[in-house]
Amino acid sequence: MDTVQVEPSVRLRTLIVDDPVAVDAYLATLSGPDVVRAMFRLDEDERQAILSALAPETAAEFIEDVPDEVAADLIEALPVQDAADIVTALPSHERADVLAEVEDEERLQILGALAPETAADARELMTYPAESAGGLMVRDFLSFSASASAREVLEDLTSGDHDLSPNLVRFAYAVNPEGRLIGMVRTRSLVAASPSTAIRDVMAPATAINAEADLVTIDACLEEAEVESLPVTDDDGRLLGVVDREHVDEALAERAAEDHLKSQGIVGGEELRSMPVGVRSRRRLSWLSINIVLNLIAASVIAAFEETLAALIALAVFLPIVSDMSGCSGNQAVAVSMRELALGVTNPRDVLRVWWQEAKVGVPNGIALGALLGSIAWLWKGPLVGGLVAFALAVNTLVAVSIGGTVPLLLKRFGADPAVASGPVLTTVTDLCGFFLLLGTATLAIAWL
Amino acid sequence: MDTVQVEPSVRLRTLIVDDPVAVDAYLATLSGPDVVRAMFRLDEDERQAILSALAPETAAEFIEDVPDEVAADLIEALPVQDAADIVTALPSHERADVLAEVEDEERLQILGALAPETAADARELMTYPAESAGGLMVRDFLSFSASASAREVLEDLTSGDHDLSPNLVRFAYAVNPEGRLIGMVRTRSLVAASPSTAIRDVMAPATAINAEADLVTIDACLEEAEVESLPVTDDDGRLLGVVDREHVDEALAERAAEDHLKSQGIVGGEELRSMPVGVRSRRRLSWLSINIVLNLIAASVIAAFEETLAALIALAVFLPIVSDMSGCSGNQAVAVSMRELALGVTNPRDVLRVWWQEAKVGVPNGIALGALLGSIAWLWKGPLVGGLVAFALAVNTLVAVSIGGTVPLLLKRFGADPAVASGPVLTTVTDLCGFFLLLGTATLAIAWL
Repeated sequence: MDTVQVEPSVRLRTLIVDDPVAVDAYLATLSGPDVVRAMFRLDEDERQAILSALAPETAAEFIEDVPDEVAADLIEALPVQDAADIVTALPSHERADVLAEVEDEERLQILGALAPETAADARELMTYPAESAGGLMVRDFLSFSASASAREVLEDLTSGDHDLSPNLVRFAYAVNPEGRLIGMVRTRSLVAASPSTAIRDVMAPATAINAEADLVTIDACLEEAEVESLPVTDDDGRLLGVVDREHVDEALAERAAEDHLKSQGIVGGEELRSMPVGVRSRRRLSWLSINIVLNLIAASVIAAFEETLAALIALAVFLPIVSDMSGCSGNQAVAVSMRELALGVTNPRDVLRVWWQEAKVGVPNGIALGALLGSIAWLWKGPLVGGLVAFALAVNTLVAVSIGGTVPLLLKRFGADPAVASGPVLTTVTDLCGFFLLLGTATLAIAWL
Repeated sequence: MDTVQVEPSVRLRTLIVDDPVAVDAYLATLSGPDVVRAMFRLDEDERQAILSALAPETAAEFIEDVPDEVAADLIEALPVQDAADIVTALPSHERADVLAEVEDEERLQILGALAPETAADARELMTYPAESAGGLMVRDFLSFSASASAREVLEDLTSGDHDLSPNLVRFAYAVNPEGRLIGMVRTRSLVAASPSTAIRDVMAPATAINAEADLVTIDACLEEAEVESLPVTDDDGRLLGVVDREHVDEALAERAAEDHLKSQGIVGGEELRSMPVGVRSRRRLSWLSINIVLNLIAASVIAAFEETLAALIALAVFLPIVSDMSGCSGNQAVAVSMRELALGVTNPRDVLRVWWQEAKVGVPNGIALGALLGSIAWLWKGPLVGGLVAFALAVNTLVAVSIGGTVPLLLKRFGADPAVASGPVLTTVTDLCGFFLLLGTATLAIAWL
């Protein structure tokens, strides 16, 4: 017999009224995504009540599991001290990311309520873009003067003063009196060394990464050095923090998800349905309105050929098909280009080569699709419509893969975001071209017949 | 003055003829993606020649950087012994993934040429799906009987017999004589322990994961246990291997990339332009032909209303616009649903709730888009066309977000892949509905006027 499982959000709603102290223990029984799901089924007031009732550490765990922008909205709405407690409980790199999304005024209040050192750290991290080494680095790590002994390092490591991830436990860094990184040592090797050994005598040169380095560079450096963490320095070589592979991988996954959302018309790269309806609606509309204009430009070709269309009304059935099928073919090519760019297999200068590789697929596919749709059109609406449709779809398939394959590279080359702009450029050009091919040749054919 | 940089593929082409021994050293000067890019600019024969000339370890590094399916094609074409040497040099979990993609006959030959133990390992890993704990696990790890001493473990760890990633160095596992996992111990703690301490006396109970566990489960367990690796056991509790967070993150990123490609009509979730043109063309066509059929079904609505359209030819301009804009609105909703499913914030049973959240955006956006396009249509083609277009786009926007938001959940609930099927279902239904709304109301209006 099945036991009836109470929906977690329903249980939370009861608990927050009847027994707020028990909320913490109840959330601990749920998985991360289940907590997020339950929280977002509550209304805003209930959510705030729960966040305030939770231990800051539990609230921080939840905040870590939601996108930064959503997290900032939640934090903003809390009493300043509650917000500051939760922000304090976040890992340092998350702290800066979330604070960066909070409105200016609330951010200043929250920073004011943090411990001075925590606030200073957060301010420093916020000066770097979230996806740079400076934005991703952790500020808590093992650093010593070169004269420190193995014993001192191991004592610090085991003192409980640090909350280091497994990857960060592995190295201790040596800095000179100006704070410049001068070497690093594996903590493992210190275990076997004599306790009085000076770091200076066992350290190796350190490979550091500049705080401005972007995600792709950090990823490549980690792979190159075959390590799980890298020290981060400023332009003067001063040690600022350490980046952990785990955070780099998270940021890369986050960026891929954002790119996908952007490519589907979600401006800003993030939307959860828990966001305010006004924000969701406005963002989606901003992209849709651009598309309406682009669509009108393309469809104006149809208006120019209204007489032809009236004379051969059967073509009206095939206009949306040519438009949609060309869009499909082109989007396949866009997706492959985006994949190859992400893998680094193609670079923005390979436009001609990519075009040629697409043409080799576009010609046979165009012929196949043209023949298929053309035959159906012939049987349904006669040989003239069949021939026109076959020609238009065949040629436009080649146009679509050519545009779809090369536009992401060209956009990237000229500094635009291919995830955002490839789709609209593709559909506008292929629609324009497809309508013109079908209706232009029809006009010629009618004149000639 | 700029020095002229020789394109790496050109350099490789020269080297392979003039000085094959130098290829290895040259590739070592390039980054991973640059190697992949250069290799794929060569033709197949050149690529094979280079792979055979390389040290197996260098070739394996390159093979690791390309998608499994592409890697399998490359391996297949090599002489069996060269292939076996490269396969041997791959990390064990990659080895099974690549071999699983190799054609049956070649796979048997390669397995026959491997060292018996390596072959047995690969066969065992291949019995699990690539994205399960069994498929991702590493077979080389630290396991001992419970009576082994701290010294024995540390000696084994430092013997050089293992090639362990940093995450796998951290734990040693205790198994009973039947190979069942009975506990685990942090190697770090053994360093401080007396050398003769038995593992039995310092080990803790081990959390293991079943070999059949899927990616999402493994990810959740790693997070829950706050560790970077987990032992993998079979149904009888026998220790089979260890999964490393690094490989789990890689697999998650790979799946996200595949889902994106699938959603854009790349069957199988992978295409690089280095794949044979025939394969690329066939795969793309298989998806496009389904779409042509779906498009014809939708467009048949237009055919049914040809008389109306002939009477009000200006509507022909707006048919593709209504179709495309509804597709855009619907795709935004699909993208948000896919995102929420991936984050676990929504589950497949939330259909009604998601529909309601979409409707709240669909109604204002439908009104805004309808009013915008309707006003333009009014100014351009008169009030009747304006009114009809406004009504059709407004209602169809609501239809599109309703379908777009809920279809991914429904597909997932009934075991279909939402990444593949959401798009085609969405566009077919919204086209059908949009054409019907515009032409159906036009027919009524004409009859009434």
